[in-house]
Amino acid sequence: AGDAAVGKNKSVSCVACHGAAGKVSIPMYPNLAGQNAMYLEQALLSYKKGERSGGQAEVMRAYVLALSDTDIADLAAYYASLQP
Amino acid sequence: AGDAAVGKNKSVSCVACHGAAGKVSIPMYPNLAGQNAMYLEQALLSYKKGERSGGQAEVMRAYVLALSDTDIADLAAYYASLQP
Repeated sequence: AGDAAVGKNKSVSCVACHGAAGKVSIPMYPNLAGQNAMYLEQALLSYKKGERSGGQAEVMRAYVLALSDTDIADLAAYYASLQP
Repeated sequence: AGDAAVGKNKSVSCVACHGAAGKVSIPMYPNLAGQNAMYLEQALLSYKKGERSGGQAEVMRAYVLALSDTDIADLAAYYASLQP
């Protein structure tokens, strides 16, 4: 499992769209706070593998391509730890 | 925008994986309660259009193919209305 504290430090690029605490102000983007870590990890890996298209998938893919599997696990743990 | 009350009636098939009130007990699935309606709608349309693969995408696609755009809007409104 990822390290939420480390994930917080890696979340700087996520904030613009997903909010400072994983709650968005832009309704076309998903809230992440309190989402299940396993699901978040799988979604990020899907973006990385190019398994999602449409919507913001290309934007997400560009961000996620820079992340290691450890980064992804840490980010998933961080967002799962936040109050929804 | 969709009708949350109508969406609730249409959510019977969603419950097995996404929980009775949009909170899952199976960590590989996403919570839906309190998610943004616009995002939920876009995600469901992406499954319908085959823009997502991997994970549970084929399962989701099979369910969503049976839904009209109105059904999708109603379901999105319903899950967005629930307490996260």
